[in-house]
Amino acid sequence: MKKMQTLTVGLGERSYPIHIGPGLIGQAALFAGHLRSGRAAVITNETVAPLYADAVETTLAACGTRYFRIVIPDGEAHKRWETLDRVYGELLRAQADRGSVIVAVGGGVVGDLAGFAAATYQRGVPYIQVPTTLLAQVDSSVGGKTAVNHVLGKNMIGAFHQPLAVIADTKTLDTLPDRELAAGLAEVIKYGAIRDVAFFEWLEGNVGRLRSRDPDALAYAISRSCQIKAEIVALDEREAGPRALLNLGHTFGHAIETLEGYGAWLHGEAVAVGMVMAARLSARLGRLPQADVNRLEALLGHAGLGIEPPALPVDAWLDAMGRDKKNESGRITLILLDRLGTAVIEKNAPANELNAFLSGR
Amino acid sequence: MKKMQTLTVGLGERSYPIHIGPGLIGQAALFAGHLRSGRAAVITNETVAPLYADAVETTLAACGTRYFRIVIPDGEAHKRWETLDRVYGELLRAQADRGSVIVAVGGGVVGDLAGFAAATYQRGVPYIQVPTTLLAQVDSSVGGKTAVNHVLGKNMIGAFHQPLAVIADTKTLDTLPDRELAAGLAEVIKYGAIRDVAFFEWLEGNVGRLRSRDPDALAYAISRSCQIKAEIVALDEREAGPRALLNLGHTFGHAIETLEGYGAWLHGEAVAVGMVMAARLSARLGRLPQADVNRLEALLGHAGLGIEPPALPVDAWLDAMGRDKKNESGRITLILLDRLGTAVIEKNAPANELNAFLSGR
Repeated sequence: MKKMQTLTVGLGERSYPIHIGPGLIGQAALFAGHLRSGRAAVITNETVAPLYADAVETTLAACGTRYFRIVIPDGEAHKRWETLDRVYGELLRAQADRGSVIVAVGGGVVGDLAGFAAATYQRGVPYIQVPTTLLAQVDSSVGGKTAVNHVLGKNMIGAFHQPLAVIADTKTLDTLPDRELAAGLAEVIKYGAIRDVAFFEWLEGNVGRLRSRDPDALAYAISRSCQIKAEIVALDEREAGPRALLNLGHTFGHAIETLEGYGAWLHGEAVAVGMVMAARLSARLGRLPQADVNRLEALLGHAGLGIEPPALPVDAWLDAMGRDKKNESGRITLILLDRLGTAVIEKNAPANELNAFLSGR
Repeated sequence: MKKMQTLTVGLGERSYPIHIGPGLIGQAALFAGHLRSGRAAVITNETVAPLYADAVETTLAACGTRYFRIVIPDGEAHKRWETLDRVYGELLRAQADRGSVIVAVGGGVVGDLAGFAAATYQRGVPYIQVPTTLLAQVDSSVGGKTAVNHVLGKNMIGAFHQPLAVIADTKTLDTLPDRELAAGLAEVIKYGAIRDVAFFEWLEGNVGRLRSRDPDALAYAISRSCQIKAEIVALDEREAGPRALLNLGHTFGHAIETLEGYGAWLHGEAVAVGMVMAARLSARLGRLPQADVNRLEALLGHAGLGIEPPALPVDAWLDAMGRDKKNESGRITLILLDRLGTAVIEKNAPANELNAFLSGR
C-alpha cells in the first residue's frame, strides 16, 4: 500500500482521477465509487487476460459487482470494426444496460477500442481505464480519446468520451516485454520534447534506470507524463488548439502505421521515428538547432528505439498524411519543434520543403 | 417564399434551429451560415438522390461550398456497420477534414446513419439534417439521436450528436409513398398521445386532410410535433428522464423490427402496433380507460396503419425487449399511458402481467 499518487484531469463535471502506484488493481476502494449499478463488463485481450483479469475481477467481486469478461485478440491489427462488432454482440447477449460499467484492462488497443465501445454502446455507457502497458499508462488511457482504425487511416473512427477514472497499476509493467517498454518510453520522451526541457534532461540522465525498470524512476516518469497530459487536456478537451501539440511525431507516425500495415510497428516505435522526422524537418526549416535534433535522436536510441524512417514513396507519405485529423482545408498540419521543450502547431509548412524532405533530398 | 416557421431546440451552446416550410432546400440563406469551411459531404440514398440531391447541391454551390456526394442503399436493412464503413471510406478518400460539414438528405435511415458518421468520423464533425420523409421531419432529424442497428438490437450503436440545423422542406413530401406517409403519422399521433390531448383531438378531426396531403394540415402537424419534441429534448438531452416518454410504442416496436428483420416493417408501422400494445397493457393494468385504447386504435386505423401485433413467441418478445436501452438492472422499462395525452415511465411493470399479455392470455 505504498506511494499511490493521484492526479486529476480537470474537466468540470467530466473531471476524473488518475491513480498511479503499485498493486492498485487489488484496491477495491479505487473501483467501488464508480460501480453503483452493480454490473461491469471487463474488456481485455488474450495476452493480458491470463495475467491480470482475474485480479481485477476479484476486486470487482469485493465491490459487490457482478461482472462478465470479453476477450479480444491482441494487437493493433485488431483495433477495427470487426472486433468492435463482436464486443457489441457480447454486451447485448449479456444484456448490459446503460448503467453497466466497462472496465478496460490492457494496453492502448484495448483502451481505445473499449473506450469507443463505451462511447457508442446504447449511445454511451461509463468506463474505467486500467492500463497495463507503459504507453497506455502515460498516454492513451488519459484524455478521453477513443477510436478504432480504418483501413485508410489510423484512429479515423472515434469519439471523445472521458473515463470515470484511470487506475494505473505500475506493478503490471513487470510483465511488459522490453519492446513494449521502449515503445512507451517514446511517448514519455515526447512530453519532455514538447513541454518540459527539465523533464527531457532528467530522462537523458535516467533512461538506463527506466529500461532496467527501477520502480521509483518509472513512477516519476509516469506521473510527470500524466501531469503534462492532464494539463493540456484540461485546456483543450476536444483538440481545437493546444492539444494538437501532443501529436508531435504522430502525423508521420500514423502514416507509417497505416502504410506499413497495422501491427508491423508498435505505435510508440512509429511515434519515435515520427518525432525524429519532425525534428529533422524543423531543423531543415531553420527552427530547431541541429544539436537538439542530435539530443533527441540520442535519447530515443538509448531508450532502445529505432530512429530511421522506412523507405516509402513520397506520394504514399503525402496521401496518408493528407488524411490526418489535424488538417484544415486540404493543408497538412504539422507539429514542429522550436527547441527542446517547445513544440508549435504549423498549419502552413512549405509544401516544397516537405516534399523534398520526404524524398530524402 | 411563403410561411416558413422556425423553432429552436434549446440546448445552450448546442442549440439549433428547425426550419419548416415549402421549398426550403432551395434557400441558400438557411445553409450558408453553417458552412464556414467551404466543404460539404452530401449523404443520401439511391431513392432520394435523383429527386433532391441536385437541388441541395445547387444550393450548396450558391453558398460557395465545394461538395461531394455519398449515396447509400435505401432501407432499414442497410442501417448497419457495413454501410457506415463505406461512408467512412468515401469521406477519407475525399480527404474530408474536421471542418467539413455532412449534409444528410433523406429519411430516418439516412439521418441516423449520416448523423452517427458525423459523430464518429475523426471523432466528430458537424452536420445538417435535411429530412425528406414525414417521419424524419417530425421525429428522427430532431434531437441528436444517431445510430445504426446491430443484428441483436435496433439502434444499439450510436451517439448523441446534435446537428447544426434541421431544414425540413415540406415540399419534399409530395413524392413520399403513401405507406411512408402513414408511417410518419404514427409518430405524429404519438406526440398527441404522450403529451397533448388537444393535438390528439385535432388529429382525430384532420387525419383525412393529412392523408390527402393538405399542405396546411401537414405544416401544422409537423410544427406541433417538432415543438413537443424540442421541449422534451431541451429538458433531457441524454434521456436520463422524461425523454424516454418519446419512446411510447418503441419498446414493443423495436422488438418487432429486430425480430421480423430490419426493413420488413417500416419503423412507424412497428411503432403504431407498439403504441397499441402499450395502450392495451396500460388498460389491462387498470391505468388507461378502454375508451382511450379504442380511440387510439381508431385514429391509427384512419391514418392507414395496422394495429395488430405479429405472432411471436413470448420468449422472443422478452429477449428482444430485455435488450432495450431504457432498461435498468435487468428489468424492462415500459412507457405506458395513464390517459390520452399523459404517458408515464414504468420501471416496475409486473412481469407476470407482461408475460400473460404477450402470450395473449
